[in-house]
Amino acid sequence: MEDCIFCQIVAGKIPSYRVYEDDAFLAFMDVFPRVIGHVLVIPKTHYRWVSDVPEFGDYWEAARNVGLKVQNATKAGFISYITMGEAVHHAHIHILPQNEGCISGISFTPVLKIPHEEIEKLAEQILQQII
Amino acid sequence: MEDCIFCQIVAGKIPSYRVYEDDAFLAFMDVFPRVIGHVLVIPKTHYRWVSDVPEFGDYWEAARNVGLKVQNATKAGFISYITMGEAVHHAHIHILPQNEGCISGISFTPVLKIPHEEIEKLAEQILQQII
Repeated sequence: MEDCIFCQIVAGKIPSYRVYEDDAFLAFMDVFPRVIGHVLVIPKTHYRWVSDVPEFGDYWEAARNVGLKVQNATKAGFISYITMGEAVHHAHIHILPQNEGCISGISFTPVLKIPHEEIEKLAEQILQQII
Repeated sequence: MEDCIFCQIVAGKIPSYRVYEDDAFLAFMDVFPRVIGHVLVIPKTHYRWVSDVPEFGDYWEAARNVGLKVQNATKAGFISYITMGEAVHHAHIHILPQNEGCISGISFTPVLKIPHEEIEKLAEQILQQII
């Protein structure tokens, strides 16, 4: 897609700091980092959402491979894997190196107060879905 | 692990609202939800971090399967997949249904101001790691 910034990075039309590449996937530094060592892993083919990537398991295997390298290089305790997808409309996994006891770069909003009956009802609706 | 709450959920010693189960993985409603439809996907075997799960690709394929059911049931636009791992020390993937234009349940902290030279140097260090 010509107007997709990540497709242009894949094509080398926009420069990036690449940290991993194979036939199907590419990883590069996020130049708007939320933490030191913030990396993005994308499929080379354009898909809107991570869920759309046909080789989903392979995609995450590549992300783990990248994540372990980032963890080593940054001496992090572990890696947070995050997908959102609003900023750039090309599937991407965020890799955020973390230190134990202190999550950085991302935070949950407060817990919702929902009656357990509602949670149970929703669980039943999820169970009924056929994919 | 006897003192692990997720292991006890797997064993049925603690009740949960289950929405998916196969030989290796289990998904259930998060009873401390950040959004309506917040689900956790865990390996039945105890691992500390998601990265430790040997069948990492299969784990994420199961998570996508669950995610698509949650997306259908909640009529969400897409799913955010999140891993952190501080609250419970048993690998878990958070599934957060989202609507386009409005990320809920989670937010990034502000972008760090780091010189591009530092980002480039870190990229070189990541490239040198052998896993």
